[in-house]
Amino acid sequence: MHRKYLITDEWKIIERGFDPALHPCSESLFALGNGRMGQRANFEEQYSGRSMQGSYIAGVYYPDKTRVGWWKNGYPEYFAKVINSVNWIGIDILIDGQPLDLARVKVTDFYRELNMKEGYLLRRFTAHFSDMQRIEVEAIRFLSIKRDEIGAIRYSITPKGFSPVITYTPYLDFDVHNEDSNYGEKFWDEVFTSVASQKAINVASTKKTNFHVAAAMRYELEANGRHITLYPENIRREKYVANRFEIKTDEGTTYTLYKYAAITSSLNYPKDKVAEEADQKASEAMRTGFDTLLHEQAEAWARIWETSDIIIEGDPEAQQGIRFNIFQLNQTYTGEDPRLNIGPKGFTGEKYGGVTYWDTEAYCFPFYLSTRKPDVARNLLLYRYRHLPKAIENAQKLGFTGGAALYPMVTINGEECHNEWEITFEEIHRNGAMVIAIKRYVEYTGDIRYLADYGLEVMIAISRFWAQRFNWSEDKQQYVMLGVTGPNEYENNINNNFYTSYIARWCMQYTLNTIDLLRTHFPDQLQLVLQKTNFDSDKEPAFWQQIIQNIYFPYSEKYQIFLQQEGYLDKEQRLASELPMSERPINQHWSWDRILRSCFIKQADTLQTFYFFEDDFTHEQHQRHFDFYEPRTVHESSLSPCVHVVLAAKLHKIDKAYELYLRTSRLDLDDYNKEVHEGLHITSMAGTWMSVVEGFGGMRVRQQRLYFDPVLPRHWKRLSFKIIFDGRILEVNTTPEGTHIVRHTGEPITLILKGQEITV
Amino acid sequence: MHRKYLITDEWKIIERGFDPALHPCSESLFALGNGRMGQRANFEEQYSGRSMQGSYIAGVYYPDKTRVGWWKNGYPEYFAKVINSVNWIGIDILIDGQPLDLARVKVTDFYRELNMKEGYLLRRFTAHFSDMQRIEVEAIRFLSIKRDEIGAIRYSITPKGFSPVITYTPYLDFDVHNEDSNYGEKFWDEVFTSVASQKAINVASTKKTNFHVAAAMRYELEANGRHITLYPENIRREKYVANRFEIKTDEGTTYTLYKYAAITSSLNYPKDKVAEEADQKASEAMRTGFDTLLHEQAEAWARIWETSDIIIEGDPEAQQGIRFNIFQLNQTYTGEDPRLNIGPKGFTGEKYGGVTYWDTEAYCFPFYLSTRKPDVARNLLLYRYRHLPKAIENAQKLGFTGGAALYPMVTINGEECHNEWEITFEEIHRNGAMVIAIKRYVEYTGDIRYLADYGLEVMIAISRFWAQRFNWSEDKQQYVMLGVTGPNEYENNINNNFYTSYIARWCMQYTLNTIDLLRTHFPDQLQLVLQKTNFDSDKEPAFWQQIIQNIYFPYSEKYQIFLQQEGYLDKEQRLASELPMSERPINQHWSWDRILRSCFIKQADTLQTFYFFEDDFTHEQHQRHFDFYEPRTVHESSLSPCVHVVLAAKLHKIDKAYELYLRTSRLDLDDYNKEVHEGLHITSMAGTWMSVVEGFGGMRVRQQRLYFDPVLPRHWKRLSFKIIFDGRILEVNTTPEGTHIVRHTGEPITLILKGQEITV
Repeated sequence: MHRKYLITDEWKIIERGFDPALHPCSESLFALGNGRMGQRANFEEQYSGRSMQGSYIAGVYYPDKTRVGWWKNGYPEYFAKVINSVNWIGIDILIDGQPLDLARVKVTDFYRELNMKEGYLLRRFTAHFSDMQRIEVEAIRFLSIKRDEIGAIRYSITPKGFSPVITYTPYLDFDVHNEDSNYGEKFWDEVFTSVASQKAINVASTKKTNFHVAAAMRYELEANGRHITLYPENIRREKYVANRFEIKTDEGTTYTLYKYAAITSSLNYPKDKVAEEADQKASEAMRTGFDTLLHEQAEAWARIWETSDIIIEGDPEAQQGIRFNIFQLNQTYTGEDPRLNIGPKGFTGEKYGGVTYWDTEAYCFPFYLSTRKPDVARNLLLYRYRHLPKAIENAQKLGFTGGAALYPMVTINGEECHNEWEITFEEIHRNGAMVIAIKRYVEYTGDIRYLADYGLEVMIAISRFWAQRFNWSEDKQQYVMLGVTGPNEYENNINNNFYTSYIARWCMQYTLNTIDLLRTHFPDQLQLVLQKTNFDSDKEPAFWQQIIQNIYFPYSEKYQIFLQQEGYLDKEQRLASELPMSERPINQHWSWDRILRSCFIKQADTLQTFYFFEDDFTHEQHQRHFDFYEPRTVHESSLSPCVHVVLAAKLHKIDKAYELYLRTSRLDLDDYNKEVHEGLHITSMAGTWMSVVEGFGGMRVRQQRLYFDPVLPRHWKRLSFKIIFDGRILEVNTTPEGTHIVRHTGEPITLILKGQEITV
Repeated sequence: MHRKYLITDEWKIIERGFDPALHPCSESLFALGNGRMGQRANFEEQYSGRSMQGSYIAGVYYPDKTRVGWWKNGYPEYFAKVINSVNWIGIDILIDGQPLDLARVKVTDFYRELNMKEGYLLRRFTAHFSDMQRIEVEAIRFLSIKRDEIGAIRYSITPKGFSPVITYTPYLDFDVHNEDSNYGEKFWDEVFTSVASQKAINVASTKKTNFHVAAAMRYELEANGRHITLYPENIRREKYVANRFEIKTDEGTTYTLYKYAAITSSLNYPKDKVAEEADQKASEAMRTGFDTLLHEQAEAWARIWETSDIIIEGDPEAQQGIRFNIFQLNQTYTGEDPRLNIGPKGFTGEKYGGVTYWDTEAYCFPFYLSTRKPDVARNLLLYRYRHLPKAIENAQKLGFTGGAALYPMVTINGEECHNEWEITFEEIHRNGAMVIAIKRYVEYTGDIRYLADYGLEVMIAISRFWAQRFNWSEDKQQYVMLGVTGPNEYENNINNNFYTSYIARWCMQYTLNTIDLLRTHFPDQLQLVLQKTNFDSDKEPAFWQQIIQNIYFPYSEKYQIFLQQEGYLDKEQRLASELPMSERPINQHWSWDRILRSCFIKQADTLQTFYFFEDDFTHEQHQRHFDFYEPRTVHESSLSPCVHVVLAAKLHKIDKAYELYLRTSRLDLDDYNKEVHEGLHITSMAGTWMSVVEGFGGMRVRQQRLYFDPVLPRHWKRLSFKIIFDGRILEVNTTPEGTHIVRHTGEPITLILKGQEITV
């Protein structure tokens, strides 16, 4: 069903042989990023085959006019999109006047490698121009982690069997388009271009949002390592600058072009300085030199792997899969800048446009919390804190009052981007994930002060939303929550979704508890927050308590389980195992109404409650709910299997856990859903990390204390992972013989391993 | 809140004074149609102000590519649109070289009249070119009812105070656009043009659907009634043909241009004949002459009014309103052609694109059944019969099998056009209306043979759909119908909508009863139908009976009412009267999710059940349900008040009935919803007829027997209406003194007046 064309290697993603049909997939899989910018694995040289050009700059977006069939009140007017930005990798090549275009020449010995250990992309191939005449090409490039505005390319050509004239055209091009543009528009306007010998600057601005982005380049050419003086021609057209020069080559000599690009934006510099800054940085990159930059890159990645690597012995595919996921997460988001966040496709594609979904808080947060210094997780929280005024505005648009906040389903600047009523207006459980992330951060770091400074303000606004979103049912004599969509998007506009009502109740209670906590620890700061939010200390807590104590949760006496929503048992009860393979995934084979009416669950919903709030339920409840819901879950969201893995591992259903783990860890590498060409599933990669560390590694954090209860899949010989906790780097090693925890840095710590206190 | 600018007159719609802001509304209100084609009240001469050009030909459509934000499986790829067709009215005028453009010259004495009695549009105005120099214009036009491919215009200009040169450019133009084109495309391609002195032909074809439409024109000019010989210049450009000529005028002389246009289409002629046919018909029209054609028109309308007029004395606005509604219904659909149907905007605008909604069967059917010969209603039924194979295909796409049919929400050729999942896939009650119309037809005409020839086939397919659409609930131990949208579109994806489940049950029962009936009356024909439909006489009736006997209907013991849907009483119960005027209509002020969660009802839903199946419920049940639901109904669909009028009248709540009647009868004339510029609410006009005849007139038909139980609004001095029943024209006259029924034609008949048998 899925295509496997990559070679398994523990540290590399490798493609051998060139198949143009797979190239768009490889463009996603081999994409590079450094948190500040990203680049799909497009070719440097011209390519007339199928390709999706993608060069992305974090935080630079365009508000494309929303397009819907039937407008509903409350829809946002715009959908913010990460946009395809400057093509800075471009180096067009002519060989004796003929374009080097892999779609048009015979290609052999094609080799592509994503080196995850050192963070670069390597490509080698031989292009044949006649029986005897060929060139051997090696191209290597990276986006510097240390200098996050720099990209560097080393592009070598060795003619064999002839001595052609090679024409090089290194360029910078802002005349690019987005594949998902709603109205076919291009999003960039030219601001300034400048081109001289071996240097060029290209500045463009985004329409409407008026971000200014500057790209500058330098390049040089060597022949067998000897510098060659060039006399290039300058080329300039709208939004495009280039040099062009010809080299009369010698057969067997290697001609190496080094191209250095710097990309700066008005997010970080005044608009009148972006060009100058880019130019200086490009110049500096060339002075530093490719080898030094590449060395820095390997060092930077070594530091990242130092705290985030996971070793799986006895399962090379799983090993490659988990490293690929960790690599991509670190390419996507570094946590340096609280204005940025984690898009579902990272820098690997355009789909899903806006950047931030509940994925960040619900799935990505634990990864960054455990593998990076606490500022990173804190920056993720601050991102939402900064958006609080817009979340309050968003709720107002929907008719909520008094400082209630509804965080957007999709956003890039705090404003809602999404426009499907059943999601935009109804998938409100996302509000709960904001508070879950705060709780996790505080539990992990013990940083109660964050609650006083930022957290409580967000929590009050969200609790106010919940208090208004429940309504009293005269009929049930309980509070109900009508018209919601839970995490399982195969149900829309349902009543009393267990997950949503549960997390809403928990938010309100946690907010009240936090107020009590801060009253003890930060009474002055608490008063400031209560004043700032106009909190009515008499009425609001009392009203919330009244709701908390009277919420209706649908329950089946027969099955002794909470029901995903009211009426779930009215559906025809079938199991996913009864579905013929020809009808799966159902979202590609069934009409939408048939999906809605079926009992099949797209992704963890009731079980998501058990994941977030596991201590609220007994082992028997876990068992019953897992046994009921897992067979009805089709896992047609990439975010689904990971939660089931954690629960299955907890229940010691190791085979089930491993089966589900396989679906998540190599989702993109093996292209299960035939959609990798659109980009990678970045946020679900954090789910894979969660599967390993919280599932097989059995890690939990409760009140700043660590618990481990590992269980290994049968054939794994070793599982080893590191986490950063309270200033220490800890390494957890599990083999079939047992678990051993090592402390690499910091003071000794006491933790709970399989129920036993140990100090390491 | 609404604008009243029209003068009340019993037989005319009159506008005095020219207000460009109101012109787009008047373009709708004064539109003409003859069932075959229609024309908004655009000006003949050029006009640079705000205007929506509209010339429509019944049955000629374009499948515009569907546009949605988020695609769902099962959506149709195309949305069939009635398209703006040839501009045949155009006569550009220059006065001494200056365009006669009402947006640019001073206009006085503007008078516009829609003469409903005789079926023409009249316009008079004076245009001033300087203090003393002015022209007086009178334009009259109509679309011939008798010759339904002919339009004729008499356009007179009388210069006063000067003797200008007048330049005339009568033309035919296919280079037109649709305002609601999804991708800004023009829908016509040129096929053939020909232009000569005082005659022209213009043939164009629609893209994709390749309908060919030909327009031909003739014209002549008179000065004070004397024929003038013209030497026009021929003008031809893409999709446009015209003549141009100048006349040196004499002050005070009236120059009258007669323009005759014929429009033919490939719906009715071979493609290679449309031009010739149009040309002949235009020529014939000119030979016949304007006065004769206009006389024919008045006669044709007299015949229509003979059987469809309603007289209301004591309420001139109500009188004008009801005549306007009847006039428009007869302009829209004549029932001559079973390939045609009744669009929500008729020929008055583009909105809602496709032509046929459930409006036809649920609201329009009784009007045509009672005021026209039975073939007309029968043609409406045959329209759906012809679409049965497509309805079966449509159901297949959604996963239904074995000959189950789901009629489309919106269609023009039998294919679904709509693309909102909550409507397209879920507002399935429309299937029931198809069977209601069949039942009404048979009850009214006694034509049981129709059931054998056509009706049963449709009914079996629809019942099969219902049988699959219910599912057995283990939990309830009853059949449930999940995930539907009832007539009240302010609820989506609800479970066990009372109306839908009720009509579904009734359809299945009625189908079974019909099979029994035909077994007696048409056993051979029955066998053919059962064979053709592969009907399983053992299993299908038994399975349907099992469902029929075990359907879950939500019911409130507390209120002793059926609930609109399961869980309706979980909503906060408010009354429409509590809504501040500033929030009404709620669909313009509330976000969609707020509307969905509220208890407010857009249009009759549970009460629609009581309307269709009134004999199934006791008077007390009527009372209780009306008293519960009417105060929660906001009537934000034009189709809502009429049903409530009928029920209120039945319950002798005359003031309530009259209040609601006012909302329906002058909806467009008084532009209640500020949307008249987009076109008229044609289908709801039939609801107005229903309000009068079934509401105040208290007419019912049961088993081919007529019942009358009239109740008049307090200030009405007389209500008089005619119906055609079983070959007789009957006139029902109600005054405060009592009701008198007169038979105009045919044999004596016995009917029930206020419970008493009488023979007239």
